[in-house]
This record gives sequence, structure tokens and C-alpha cells, in this order.
Amino acid sequence: MLTTSTRTTTNVIVWVEGRHEQTDAIVQQLYPDGMAAAIAEGLENHFDGPISIRTASIDEPEHGLSESALANADVVLWWGHKAHHEVSDEVVARVKRHVLGGMGLIVLHSGHWSKIFMSLMGTTCTLKWRNEADRELVWTVDPSHPITQGVPSPIVLPEQEMYGEFFDIPTPDELVFISSFSGGEVFRSGCTFRRGKGRIFFFSPGDQAYPVYFHSNVRQVLANAVRWARPDSRERDVPTLARFSEGWFESQVDA
Amino acid sequence: MLTTSTRTTTNVIVWVEGRHEQTDAIVQQLYPDGMAAAIAEGLENHFDGPISIRTASIDEPEHGLSESALANADVVLWWGHKAHHEVSDEVVARVKRHVLGGMGLIVLHSGHWSKIFMSLMGTTCTLKWRNEADRELVWTVDPSHPITQGVPSPIVLPEQEMYGEFFDIPTPDELVFISSFSGGEVFRSGCTFRRGKGRIFFFSPGDQAYPVYFHSNVRQVLANAVRWARPDSRERDVPTLARFSEGWFESQVDA
Amino acid sequence: MLTTSTRTTTNVIVWVEGRHEQTDAIVQQLYPDGMAAAIAEGLENHFDGPISIRTASIDEPEHGLSESALANADVVLWWGHKAHHEVSDEVVARVKRHVLGGMGLIVLHSGHWSKIFMSLMGTTCTLKWRNEADRELVWTVDPSHPITQGVPSPIVLPEQEMYGEFFDIPTPDELVFISSFSGGEVFRSGCTFRRGKGRIFFFSPGDQAYPVYFHSNVRQVLANAVRWARPDSRERDVPTLARFSEGWFESQVDA
Amino acid sequence: MLTTSTRTTTNVIVWVEGRHEQTDAIVQQLYPDGMAAAIAEGLENHFDGPISIRTASIDEPEHGLSESALANADVVLWWGHKAHHEVSDEVVARVKRHVLGGMGLIVLHSGHWSKIFMSLMGTTCTLKWRNEADRELVWTVDPSHPITQGVPSPIVLPEQEMYGEFFDIPTPDELVFISSFSGGEVFRSGCTFRRGKGRIFFFSPGDQAYPVYFHSNVRQVLANAVRWARPDSRERDVPTLARFSEGWFESQVDA
Repeated sequence: MLTTSTRTTTNVIVWVEGRHEQTDAIVQQLYPDGMAAAIAEGLENHFDGPISIRTASIDEPEHGLSESALANADVVLWWGHKAHHEVSDEVVARVKRHVLGGMGLIVLHSGHWSKIFMSLMGTTCTLKWRNEADRELVWTVDPSHPITQGVPSPIVLPEQEMYGEFFDIPTPDELVFISSFSGGEVFRSGCTFRRGKGRIFFFSPGDQAYPVYFHSNVRQVLANAVRWARPDSRERDVPTLARFSEGWFESQVDA
Repeated sequence: MLTTSTRTTTNVIVWVEGRHEQTDAIVQQLYPDGMAAAIAEGLENHFDGPISIRTASIDEPEHGLSESALANADVVLWWGHKAHHEVSDEVVARVKRHVLGGMGLIVLHSGHWSKIFMSLMGTTCTLKWRNEADRELVWTVDPSHPITQGVPSPIVLPEQEMYGEFFDIPTPDELVFISSFSGGEVFRSGCTFRRGKGRIFFFSPGDQAYPVYFHSNVRQVLANAVRWARPDSRERDVPTLARFSEGWFESQVDA
Repeated sequence: MLTTSTRTTTNVIVWVEGRHEQTDAIVQQLYPDGMAAAIAEGLENHFDGPISIRTASIDEPEHGLSESALANADVVLWWGHKAHHEVSDEVVARVKRHVLGGMGLIVLHSGHWSKIFMSLMGTTCTLKWRNEADRELVWTVDPSHPITQGVPSPIVLPEQEMYGEFFDIPTPDELVFISSFSGGEVFRSGCTFRRGKGRIFFFSPGDQAYPVYFHSNVRQVLANAVRWARPDSRERDVPTLARFSEGWFESQVDA
Repeated sequence: MLTTSTRTTTNVIVWVEGRHEQTDAIVQQLYPDGMAAAIAEGLENHFDGPISIRTASIDEPEHGLSESALANADVVLWWGHKAHHEVSDEVVARVKRHVLGGMGLIVLHSGHWSKIFMSLMGTTCTLKWRNEADRELVWTVDPSHPITQGVPSPIVLPEQEMYGEFFDIPTPDELVFISSFSGGEVFRSGCTFRRGKGRIFFFSPGDQAYPVYFHSNVRQVLANAVRWARPDSRERDVPTLARFSEGWFESQVDA
């Protein structure tokens, strides 16, 4: 019998850049304990099962993403915005290796332009934007998807930054949510991608100037996404190039 | 060398139900020669290459879709609305056989609820609607797709019926356009599907109460779609169940 | 907090046509208690969590698939072969309604030509075949997919009926397994499809002339598939066509 | 009317690394004029329409891929094997920019491990291999796809290097061919990917130790792929990040 991790603790790292919290009065007012704390609180309240959450930021040693930290993580959530270029290439390569080996990754909002997301997508990940408090409606287009369970369609976000198409990403493996904005633009706001052995979810709501991460539906989406992205095992298994002799599988032992 | 149909005539049937034209004053005013004539005119003006267009409607014998008519067609465009249930099951089965054998099919607007589309999709093909002259914006989300060439993003349709998600279709093979409406709804308005040997394109703009089929961008989309959906040959080749002996392909002659 | 069915019992119906067991000596020898019993035993042993399994067959009233039976089911597995045409259209329509409303469906082997599968796919579902004990190798091509967890790649089935391409199905939402046969043919042997609110998995190994359903890896795949296809709730919610006034979502209460 | 490039010359660059030709006696015997010449000859003979072909190799200045060379190209074919690491990062970035801006790219065989392919895919692009003259059968699984027109299924390649799953690529946008090998392995041997405005086709047959590029069916596939990957215009249009004011599209002029 396969023993899944269903009943074991899910280890999550909430990685938030953490610079806006240092200098931006609006962010300090909206998120007095920082954005990471709000995201973590949402997961605590909405995740169905035991969960252990660490937060990490760009200003910690190795950005808080050491080899051992990643080795213990099931899923990393990534929010960055104005300091993408300060994230070290070494740490990006390390995170990518863990994702390709099976770790889940949830990329939030302006993380669309992070080194890690661009490296995994292979495209420019560019988009249209306007930060003028458009109302965002998040519509479910895949109601059988686990990430959509327990949230209404649409989720109504009274104020958000507009992100509009064309969003230069590969065609998602699954398109889960499409957003519209009061200005008329649309955006593929909830997308899954499988890369290597890992599962990736991009979710676009979440600009720092609005209290998006306190919204209960957004929190439910993130909790669902953690459950969906979580691998069955913490053993990393990055695909490799290797020669195989004819008939190699005949000596393979059945599971 | 493969001889493609690039330089030969493309045969198209514009099938329009034709009932609104008989009784609806708005339609008669907008489309004095009928909707089929407007669609055909658009193809004549925008299709890049020789094209031969027939129109057909529900009130002709066999709905204008006899075996020989279909055998000579490369692509059928299908617009129906209030008489879906009057289309004979025999004709629907015939059209389906031709599509699975290679004929292109372009399903327009309220054709989402036609027997032929539902039969090819396997789902309810239901959606949300509101016919109150919402502005529709048609955004390109796949700019490398041939169907999007030569049209702006967004296409602006000042007035249209609202079609909203959840649209109960299988995940499209390619999602080409997403629409937003002034009321805030979104819709997967341009979708491709491959079924058997045939290519299918669904395009949602086109309610009879608005002059959508005179819009030059809409006409360009339909002309592009005909080019995309057109098979290389008019020979139908419906997949069949058959037994194959071991090594059958060794005697196959290379092309 | 979303209460998922993770810790509640999963209700499964193993539907096996049941005719070969009545007349075919090979099947009687391989499956002395019938194929349904072997499939059920595999689920009992490999499913991770509480599970309740009923078996049903074509010769029961309503083929054992009454409205109440389906209303209580989370997932139906479907194996049929020589009596597809005897399954009543009424029962097929009922099963389809439950699938579109959220029930999981796992279609096995010759079920590719069942009325329910063809109706949900919209294509001919035809393929090449040869029943001469080819060795089948089942290769994983989506190692991050939950259905592949705990099984080796390839699964080696010493003897099986050959099913070969072209398999006339819509492009799967996810292609999980590809099989090769000793005669050289290939087949998309593990495919997922989302239709309406329901999740469908097709898995091709399983001809009645071989002991495939006693193979531990095959049993693990089916147990994984039940877990994957199971909806979060037993409430059916078939998509419908409906008019929505402008701004209808503003009065929607957040979850 | 959209003026397509249908009747204008298609400009192709056949890029072949060119090192095996310098030192490997088998390659010199099989491809006395080099692999690039064989590929070019196949395109000349099988492409339907005017075509202009340049060849280029790693040992030319800028690897033969200067800005002006790429600006004039519609499609680049890429074959590399043992000198991937010698391709300059600057040239790789240049080719990637052109692909994202609309240029077609066809990646051949061992090009799966080229910098340009890995950068566009975001994964390790690793696979299983064995170079012992397995027979390769290339099966069509998408018979409506333009790349499959005019070739039999399977294409029989008497001897080829084995490439086997798991092939660590993103899920292809379209899976066109699946190969089996006499040793039993399978491989997704024909895959399309859309990235930015560009179309990419990966085709795995083509090890230097076998005369694959003289095979008429392989040549037909490559000619079809050039036609499919060719953009409608040579104007590059790489997606960019930009702010858009509310209502910006209202002043947009229709095409």
C-alpha cells in the first residue's frame, strides 16, 4: 500500500521579498506584521491538515533558502516585486533544482517577473499593468480542479492592480482562473504548470497596495494550491540523462 | 512532394438557420440580405486565396447538407439559435461523420447549443447569458496562432450579447481568444478542438441583434479560421476499429 | 475551513459487464470470482483511506446503476466488451449526467467503445488491436501526476491484447502513460479528461484473457485513479444555461 | 485583406554544429557533403513553395547567426550534439529573442540538450538513450496536424539511436508523434511548443550515425514543420512589460 503524506505535516516556506514593508507606508498600514505573516495566517486557517509554515525573505542569509531549508520543504510560495535582480543566481538555481526534483512552487502576483519563474517558463513573462485600483473579478473556468474547491466564481476583489493580456507564458497545463478588470482587460490569473517532477501554480491577485491576502477566498485558493502542489514524498528526484542497456527493465522489481 | 490545397479553391458552406430573418424586424434591418450573406461577403473580402461559398439553411431539403454537398465542402460554418431541435439527427450524424473524416467546422455564437457541437464536445455546452448590449472586448491570448493574424487585441464590439463562464466545454486544444463584457463577465470566446481528422473552431461573437458580421476584424477572424480549419485533401477518412497482424507495417510503402 | 472528503469513506462502484465470466473458460479460470471481484480486491488492498466498494453488472436491474446507486457513488469504474449495445440509453444518459455533475469515472480497456465513453468523448474512440499476447510496457510520461505515484516505469505486463494508435479520442487533458507492445505499436494508455464537473481517467490495460487485474502495479494505478477522480463532495452540480442580470455577483456572499 | 507570406519565399537557416563531419568516419561516409547539406536537400525537394536555404555551423563567426542573418530568417533548424557548451551565451540569447519575437525554430534530435532548447523549455530536457541501432517506429497521434500530412504512420527507421521516456520537457502544446524502439522504449518524438510569438517543433529522429536525413518521410516531416513554424511576417515583436491607461484601446484603429 502506498503511504501518502495525506496525514503527515505539510512543510511550507512563505518567501516574501520584504522590501516594501521597510519603506512603504501603505504596505505598513495594510500589513503591520508584513505580507508573509498575512499569507501564513491564511494558510494556518484554511489548510485542511497539519501544516508547518516558515517565512523567509531576501535579506536573510541565502535569502532564507539554504539547501537544508529547501530539502525540508514541500511547497514554497514566492512573492517578489522590486528586488528580483538582487536574488542570487545560485539560490535561483537551487530552488529550480528542488522544483524539478518534486517540490511544489506557488508564484504570486509580481513574482511573474522573478528569476525563478522566468527560468522555469522560458519566456519573457511580461504583461500589461495599471495600478489604479481596478476591481478584479476572478472567474473559475475549471470547476473540477481541486484548487477551485470552496471558493465562489467570481471572487470579487474590490481593488487590485490590473494585469492584462498578452501574458507571455507558455500555454498553462491547466487554466484554472481568468480575471477581468473594471477597465475591461482580462488575465489568465490562475495557471498550473508541471516542470520536471514538480508542480507549479501561478496566482496573480496580490499587489502590496491592497489587502488581498486577508481576503478569505484568496486564502482558500492558496491553501488549496498548497495541497495540490505538495509532492507525495520529500525525496527529490531531478531527471537525469543516462544510458540504458537493452532489456534493463526486465530486472526491475515490481513495487 | 506533397501537393497541398494552398493554391486550389477552398469550398465553404455558410450554414445559417435562417429563422430570425423571417420574423425578427431587428434582424431584417441589420441583415437585409440575411446573416448568411453578410458572413459570406466577409469571407469573400478577407480570405487570402480562391474561395467558393455556398449558403444553406434549415428550411432547405436535408437542411442544404446532403451527402454530396458535404463531400464537396472543405469547411462548414454553423450558426443556429432557436431551432436547434428541428435539425434532423440524420443530418447531424452526417455532418459529424464528415468532421471526424477531416472536414473543418466553425461553430458561431449560439451554435454552442447546436446538436452538432454538443455531440462533438460530449458536454452540456451551457453558459451564462444576458442580452443587453454589453460591450465585448475580444483579447488575443495566443498571438502566434494563425487565427489571430491581422486583428488587433482587443477587438472592440460596441454591443453584443453577454456570454459568461462557466462555459461547459472540454478544455480547448488551443485557447485563442478570451472576451470580457462591460458587466464584468469573461468568456473563452475563441477555442480550437481537434476531433478525429477534423479541426473545429468555436467563435462566440455574433448575436443576431447586433451587426457583428459586418465588423472587419470579425470577418478577418472567420477568414483566418477557414484557412486554419481547411484540410489538405477533400478525401474523408473516418477512423475505424480494425485488427492488425504483427508486423503489418513492414510491407507499408513509404510515401 | 474547507472540509474535504479526505478522511471520509470513498464510495466506489466497480461496474463489469459480466458476460465473459458466464461463457468463457479462460476468463473463468483466470478470474474464478469474476473480474469485478479482482478489481475490487485490488482497490481494497491499495487504496489509501476508507473505501466502500459495490460491484454491478449488465444483468442486474438498471444494470445496477439506479439513480440512488449513482447518487451515493464517488467514482464508477467501467469495464465492458461484448455487450456495449445492450446497455440502455437511459442508463448511459444517467451516468453521463452524474459525471458532468461531478462523479468520477474510470474507463477500463475495452470500455473505450462503450456508449458512455463515446458519448463523453464525441469521437469514434476506435483503435488498432491484436489479441495475441504481446508484451505491454506501460511508461510514465507525467511523473508528477498523482496517478503515477508508487508504480515503476515501465510497468511490465508479460501478456496483453495490443491496442495501437491512432486512438481516436480528443487530446487528453493529461497524458499520463504511453504503452508499447512487442509488435512495435504504441498507445496512449493512461489519459485524463475533465468533462463538466467530473474527472475521467482512461486506462487501457485489462483484457479478459490475461490476469492483468491481479498485477500489483495495475492495482496501484487504479487505487491512485480513484483518489484522483473522487470529487470533494457528493452533491451533483450539472452545468446549466441561465440568464444573469448585470451585477448579479455583487450580492454574492463570500465563502 | 491580410497578405500572408503564402506566396513569398520562405527563408530557412539549417544550423548544424558540424564537428562530427570533421572527425567521425561514419558520418563522413553517410553524409559526404555534411549533415546540413542533406537536410537542406530534403527541404528543397519536399517544401511546397519558394524556399531559400542557408546553412550555418558552430565554427563560423557568431556561429553563422548574426543579427542580420536571424532578421532575415523565417525558420531556423538546429542540430547540435557534442559542442553544445561551446555555443556562446550571447548567440543563444539572440536566437531566443528572435524566437520569442516570432521566428520559427525546429530542434532536431540531440538538440534536445542545446542551450537554446533548454532555455526555452525551462526543464532539464534529459532522457534515456542507447546508441545500438534500435529500429524506430514513428507513429502519428494527431492526424489532423499539418506536420503529419503526406507521411505514413508509422515511419519505419531501420536503425536509430534510442531515446526513451521520461523526457523531461514541459507538456507539449501538441503531441504529434510518438516513437517506439525495438528495445521496447517509447518517446514523444514530435512535439510543438509556442513560446512568445514563436512556434517551436522538436523532432527526435536524426542521430549522426544513421542516414536518417536522407529518408523521404523524415524530409517530408521537416518540410511540413517549416511550413507550420513560419510566421506570417518577418517583423519581430518580442512581448514587453508596459503600463496601459484605462481605456487605452478605445483609440485603437481597427485593422
